[in-house]
Amino acid sequence: MHKKPLLVLLLLLLSLTTHQQVCAEDGYRLWQRYDLVQDAAKLSAYRQAIGELVVTGDSPTIAAVRKELQSGLNGLLGQAVKVSQAPGQSPALVAGTPASSAFIKNTGITDRLKPLGDEGYLLLSTQQNGRSYTLIAANSDIGVLYGSFHFLRLLQTNQDISKLSLSSKPKIRHRVLNHWDNLDRTVERGYSGFSLWDWHRLPDYIDQRYIDYARANASIGINGTVLTNVNANALVLTADYIAKVAALADAFRPYGLKVYLTARFSAPIEIGGLKTADPQEPQVQAWWKEKSDEIYKAIPDFGGFLVKANSEGQPGPQNYGRNHAEGANMLADAVAPYGGIVMWRAFVYDDKEPDDRAKQAYNEFKPLDGTFRDNVLVQVKNGAIDFQPREPFHPLFGAMPKTPLMMEFQITQEYLGQGTSLAYLSPMYKETLDADTHAKGKGSTVAKDIDGTLHKHSLTGIAGVANIGTDRNWTGHHFGQANWYSFGRLAWDHSLSSEEIADEWVRMTFTNTLAFVKPVKEIMLGSHETVVNYMTPLGLHHIMAWDHHYGPGPWIKDKHRADWTSVYYHKADENGIGFDRTKTGSNAVAQYFPPVAKQFGNLKQVPEKYLLWFHHVGWDYKVKSGRTLWDELCYRYSDGVKGVQQMQQIWDSMQEQVDEERFQHVKTFLNMQEKEAKWWRDACLLYFQTFSKRPIPQDLEKPAYTLEHYMRLDPKFVPGI
Amino acid sequence: MHKKPLLVLLLLLLSLTTHQQVCAEDGYRLWQRYDLVQDAAKLSAYRQAIGELVVTGDSPTIAAVRKELQSGLNGLLGQAVKVSQAPGQSPALVAGTPASSAFIKNTGITDRLKPLGDEGYLLLSTQQNGRSYTLIAANSDIGVLYGSFHFLRLLQTNQDISKLSLSSKPKIRHRVLNHWDNLDRTVERGYSGFSLWDWHRLPDYIDQRYIDYARANASIGINGTVLTNVNANALVLTADYIAKVAALADAFRPYGLKVYLTARFSAPIEIGGLKTADPQEPQVQAWWKEKSDEIYKAIPDFGGFLVKANSEGQPGPQNYGRNHAEGANMLADAVAPYGGIVMWRAFVYDDKEPDDRAKQAYNEFKPLDGTFRDNVLVQVKNGAIDFQPREPFHPLFGAMPKTPLMMEFQITQEYLGQGTSLAYLSPMYKETLDADTHAKGKGSTVAKDIDGTLHKHSLTGIAGVANIGTDRNWTGHHFGQANWYSFGRLAWDHSLSSEEIADEWVRMTFTNTLAFVKPVKEIMLGSHETVVNYMTPLGLHHIMAWDHHYGPGPWIKDKHRADWTSVYYHKADENGIGFDRTKTGSNAVAQYFPPVAKQFGNLKQVPEKYLLWFHHVGWDYKVKSGRTLWDELCYRYSDGVKGVQQMQQIWDSMQEQVDEERFQHVKTFLNMQEKEAKWWRDACLLYFQTFSKRPIPQDLEKPAYTLEHYMRLDPKFVPGI
Repeated sequence: MHKKPLLVLLLLLLSLTTHQQVCAEDGYRLWQRYDLVQDAAKLSAYRQAIGELVVTGDSPTIAAVRKELQSGLNGLLGQAVKVSQAPGQSPALVAGTPASSAFIKNTGITDRLKPLGDEGYLLLSTQQNGRSYTLIAANSDIGVLYGSFHFLRLLQTNQDISKLSLSSKPKIRHRVLNHWDNLDRTVERGYSGFSLWDWHRLPDYIDQRYIDYARANASIGINGTVLTNVNANALVLTADYIAKVAALADAFRPYGLKVYLTARFSAPIEIGGLKTADPQEPQVQAWWKEKSDEIYKAIPDFGGFLVKANSEGQPGPQNYGRNHAEGANMLADAVAPYGGIVMWRAFVYDDKEPDDRAKQAYNEFKPLDGTFRDNVLVQVKNGAIDFQPREPFHPLFGAMPKTPLMMEFQITQEYLGQGTSLAYLSPMYKETLDADTHAKGKGSTVAKDIDGTLHKHSLTGIAGVANIGTDRNWTGHHFGQANWYSFGRLAWDHSLSSEEIADEWVRMTFTNTLAFVKPVKEIMLGSHETVVNYMTPLGLHHIMAWDHHYGPGPWIKDKHRADWTSVYYHKADENGIGFDRTKTGSNAVAQYFPPVAKQFGNLKQVPEKYLLWFHHVGWDYKVKSGRTLWDELCYRYSDGVKGVQQMQQIWDSMQEQVDEERFQHVKTFLNMQEKEAKWWRDACLLYFQTFSKRPIPQDLEKPAYTLEHYMRLDPKFVPGI
Repeated sequence: MHKKPLLVLLLLLLSLTTHQQVCAEDGYRLWQRYDLVQDAAKLSAYRQAIGELVVTGDSPTIAAVRKELQSGLNGLLGQAVKVSQAPGQSPALVAGTPASSAFIKNTGITDRLKPLGDEGYLLLSTQQNGRSYTLIAANSDIGVLYGSFHFLRLLQTNQDISKLSLSSKPKIRHRVLNHWDNLDRTVERGYSGFSLWDWHRLPDYIDQRYIDYARANASIGINGTVLTNVNANALVLTADYIAKVAALADAFRPYGLKVYLTARFSAPIEIGGLKTADPQEPQVQAWWKEKSDEIYKAIPDFGGFLVKANSEGQPGPQNYGRNHAEGANMLADAVAPYGGIVMWRAFVYDDKEPDDRAKQAYNEFKPLDGTFRDNVLVQVKNGAIDFQPREPFHPLFGAMPKTPLMMEFQITQEYLGQGTSLAYLSPMYKETLDADTHAKGKGSTVAKDIDGTLHKHSLTGIAGVANIGTDRNWTGHHFGQANWYSFGRLAWDHSLSSEEIADEWVRMTFTNTLAFVKPVKEIMLGSHETVVNYMTPLGLHHIMAWDHHYGPGPWIKDKHRADWTSVYYHKADENGIGFDRTKTGSNAVAQYFPPVAKQFGNLKQVPEKYLLWFHHVGWDYKVKSGRTLWDELCYRYSDGVKGVQQMQQIWDSMQEQVDEERFQHVKTFLNMQEKEAKWWRDACLLYFQTFSKRPIPQDLEKPAYTLEHYMRLDPKFVPGI
């Protein structure tokens, strides 16, 4: 009697399961997969702990919380979670603020919430009248959303949720992506297709990707996005485009993601019809005020402006004999009434060639300390040159106590193999964040300058140049997703380790199976060093190909600016190689605080990874391994290639642990990377050998072609420019 | 005893179904959805008829057949179809050729197969030893694949498959897409994202989209694709790119899709280092021969070249005082040894302004009839100007009896609302194909010239300029898919009606529910006329905005070429409007065969849809409706807007019949189209009113803004250039 209906149901389900298209494993879902928990014990515990879901309130953000928890739990628990208006008989997951939820208000946790500010949250297992509850509580709706993503992450990574008592709040206030996206949808230094922003169909058409983009950012705590390239086009500030930007802002708002724009300094001339953009001209100041009024009318929570001025051809205040602070302050005054901020980039260099480009930002900005408005952040790249595979930290960190400095990391892999290389960048970010500036004695890390604790700033910020495009998997390389992820996680909490972040990401993106998690983390954690080895070991830098930066070009010289050539940076000659930035050279080391300057300036003390950054070193100089510099260089380049081959071996052994689609994708990309690694190794060693005149050690693989062959290679239409 | 395991299985299935991500209804699957058949009776009949699947053979194409039938049937029947090596006890679906399948060979259908050539197929219900079989049989593997797609279509559209006895073969041999894709991945006149071809990652990385692109083309019988823009870049003929093209060819080959390239006529200079590209120079001829050898070595089934020469700035034989035939023949000789063809475009115009651009192709090519090599097709656009919303058929059709003419249609909507307008183009294609040239008396349709029956050519071809890009749904607008689909279907069989094709497409792409199929077909079948009405009614043409062709620009004048302006074409003045192409004017009508020339040249006989194409007509001339020309113009523009609003109303009423995602997408696009329709109507009427000096009829909606407002509109970064 009972069997029949069951059978019918079974058949129905069978047809459901077999006819349903299996979604492609194309990476679109990022780390937000919400697939069924595979660990049976954990699954059972989770199902028991979450008998129903209670999310009260009706703001768009609370609606997003409800939707995310519901779809997340349905997927992870493999059953439709019951959604209730108020906790009933079953153990409930309750999410809300004291304002939106009477239940949360009555739990008496308001005191615990107070220190969490307007973005923090509390995850708490609690008992009430003998029943168990799990709370996701915060002072604000967005805090609840951040807490919900944290909670889902606990399930995705198979953590125990039975005795939760954890709170979290961001260490940095403005956690922002910078999109170098042009209005024609090309992306400067973008290697994953084209710009997500479909300007032509905006403001009418809201692509589902915009929502999923905002969701992904919110899940890692990113709360701002600069939509446009720092090499800016003033048109984005015209009425037509402001309406389009407003439509994006509307789509992002429930997820706590504010929009910012790049402000082209000459916009008052180009679209305003003025004859000048001089920041001291009242009409120019008035134009920016009116423009800000217009923007804020359309986008009340507009974040503010990011500006690249007087750098690489961009106009700026110096065109009118004004300094960077005068330029920044004019814009800051325009957005101040609305709570907007200005992020003013320190990445500048003169029209005239400096003796050492590494020194310029410090020389220009340090004297301006204390002259910026309260709502200005100076945005400083992690190093003093330009997002090289490895750079020592920028000497400005710690050096402008009266000015909040904002970190600018590059997530997109401009100099790191572009779209085809696996390079997990968290270790690179951490290397800078953990560096000690000694600004206020030992322990004055860069992170402390950025998070405001070093110089007591409440306005703090961190930016990452996005690696996101229209490629189905967002980042071109599946492992590029890990860099977006790790940037967000570190922006929220820079004390996390690269290993912890990789662990989370691998589990959420692929599987919790240790046989996969462990080896793949090993791949990730060594990958940045591997790329540095085959590109720019021992502190070499800026020796890439002309213009597109894809592939090696140590021979680049005789361009219209010496500091855009490779020979300017490696200074290889018969005697040796490296840029002398000590007292006998450009003395850039003097820009660091004395303990650092002393270490970097001393050939014996400088960390070997920065050796040729700071010193011109003889070919036969004995490095720590006991080898000569030349031999060491050869071994390092060779190690880089071997590192890629090791990644290939490990990945190949993962075939059983991962879906075929992503397995093949990553395998293909690793094959490309191996070719590129050999290209770098052979081209660089053959070129440097023309100076060293020493043989490549016998036990290393010989270059496959002549130097001339490599110098002739000229890939066309390299993406990203 | 039996209940327990069933229950466990049930629970397992439950968790499978509920946890499985439902795939987004983002249109990626095109018309190849293979979702469960909803009609219970049909489903049951299909399941009964297809007890097992037998596909023998091991060629890549047969493997594709097996994979497609298996996944298609699994989806459509909602159960895993049994795959066997040979027919067994159950009624079997057997697919193969007499060569690959002994079973098929033994059915004795070889005689029925013979006339089907190397692409045709037979679908046959048959009995053998008292058992039922359904055969998909052909002379070649690719015929089996085409037949398999036809068979799947029968199921997708809920047709009876119990008494099949149908055969089909293509009427035209080369059915080719033309991609106007540039090597930097921009697409000229492309409105659905960027080029599919990820040149940078080729040849290593084979995107799944390449396979799905080939599958979709094969499903509608398209057997060739020109990968690159007719405004060509010679670099695609260099070794690096040939390797990339070969990788694409490898990916497409199982699906019968040949690759072609555009040949830049000056390539011997640009990449060959020669001083000339003169087709009479032996060294130039030798260069092309060697280049062809090189290409065919990498791609043994390379299709050949498409050439745009001496047109809009492209180099060509005329640069050296040679004619088009001399240019085409040189390339034809180079690819002839390999069976390659040359498609030489007739879309040319002089550097100097002609009295009527419509006459030029005829004047240049007609005298060359009989001078082209056997493996040259002259590719002629459907009309004599340039893919206007509506054009009378090109006078070259029928007029070159000794030369196979290839049709060039535009699928991408350059002049038809670009990416945002719903315009089903099959009626437009049919209007040209069904037009009677009278070349050999009544019934000498354009279609008969194209399919070779009119002038007895065995080399035949048809090209469609693709509307495909990286947008997730391939074509930007969901209904753009219908144009790709209908081009392919008509290329295979131009006798199909627009209604039949729409019926198939709607059923496969959305649902078989009549409550949806009927109204949506109504939308589709009227949509092209609607767009013509609000853009260029009554034979108006070429009055769009400068450069990007997005939006109206009847006021465009004073450019460096008169025939690139709007006033050249509409010739509006105080007296009237229209281009006099009769004896009193440019006499372009004389290029048609006498019966046509007489009809088009006579103001009373010319079809009203071509009125202003051929005649300059007074504002007060009484048209067939009894209205004055001016009033009629006003009503037609107004009808265009109303037509869009009608589409909106119908679509809005479809919400229950379609998934929310595609419903909203199309709704948004229809909203954009309504705005654009009003923009066209108001801008054109206000502008033409400055000549007619007559009022817009009282009962029509008044323009929302002034003419000056519309003339000032200047959308930036319009895609597709």
